[in-house]
Amino acid sequence: MSASVSGQDFRNAMARLGAAVSVIATDGPAGRGGFTATAVCSVSDSPPTLLVCMNSKSAQCETFIQNGSFAVNILATSHRELAALFSGKSQDMAERFAAASWVQSGSRSPLLEDAVAAFDCTLDGIQLIGTHHVMLGKVVNVRSRENGRVLLYVDRAYVSANNLN
Amino acid sequence: MSASVSGQDFRNAMARLGAAVSVIATDGPAGRGGFTATAVCSVSDSPPTLLVCMNSKSAQCETFIQNGSFAVNILATSHRELAALFSGKSQDMAERFAAASWVQSGSRSPLLEDAVAAFDCTLDGIQLIGTHHVMLGKVVNVRSRENGRVLLYVDRAYVSANNLN
Repeated sequence: MSASVSGQDFRNAMARLGAAVSVIATDGPAGRGGFTATAVCSVSDSPPTLLVCMNSKSAQCETFIQNGSFAVNILATSHRELAALFSGKSQDMAERFAAASWVQSGSRSPLLEDAVAAFDCTLDGIQLIGTHHVMLGKVVNVRSRENGRVLLYVDRAYVSANNLN
Repeated sequence: MSASVSGQDFRNAMARLGAAVSVIATDGPAGRGGFTATAVCSVSDSPPTLLVCMNSKSAQCETFIQNGSFAVNILATSHRELAALFSGKSQDMAERFAAASWVQSGSRSPLLEDAVAAFDCTLDGIQLIGTHHVMLGKVVNVRSRENGRVLLYVDRAYVSANNLN
């Protein structure tokens, strides 16, 4: 037990909190944007609302804010390389999006064709908290498939879910 | 793809989003409270901040708000019964807390002794969004252990994380 909490202590403990891996994607007047995220959270089912945390230092923040819409694409275990690409150093969006097949949603956001589930959202509010923007998304459309195993990120490694004994 | 999103469609798609399982616990002037949650999200590492979503219909909301502090206890696979107990019908807090060993934090919040990781938080803001309160927690203390596999909840079942092939 530490007397105060450093950012490093916090990140190390948070790494133990497993989470599903998603690609958050937008398209619109400000162009395309997309990044890999694990800080995605269900908020309310009435109206259907979720939230995504985005590092405020990201050059993509303005793209998301100006477009005013985004999609949350939950990745399958087959998407490990896509997850790495969308969290890598290269910010070349053409290169990132060329690596998979996308469907354009009603709000123009790129929906990953074979996502485990995809949520088409309008940006319903944004709040800067410390290092991150918390983006609220009102879900206007959803698609999901029955098969496909969700890609998880636990202890800083990509893993899959297995039945407990 | 549906033309509009019902709460049921949203919940079904969200069920595919795997998440770690935590017990959120509080103690203080308003008494003890505790519930199982998967809607927990890292927000910022500077200052260390997380968020937890709590159903606004829960009788426990006032307890958390009045105490002004809570702990996020990330469960291990060995805690499956504890997860069920803290999400079950019985609201008998004495019964719930008797099922495990707890350490009292500086802010009085119950830290699960053998949690995979535990975050001691002060309530730093609360916002009602649709059906849920989003509670912001400023992390004032953290403890974690190296061993222990995190308990995950995916497709409405408790599972563990396994290496990808």
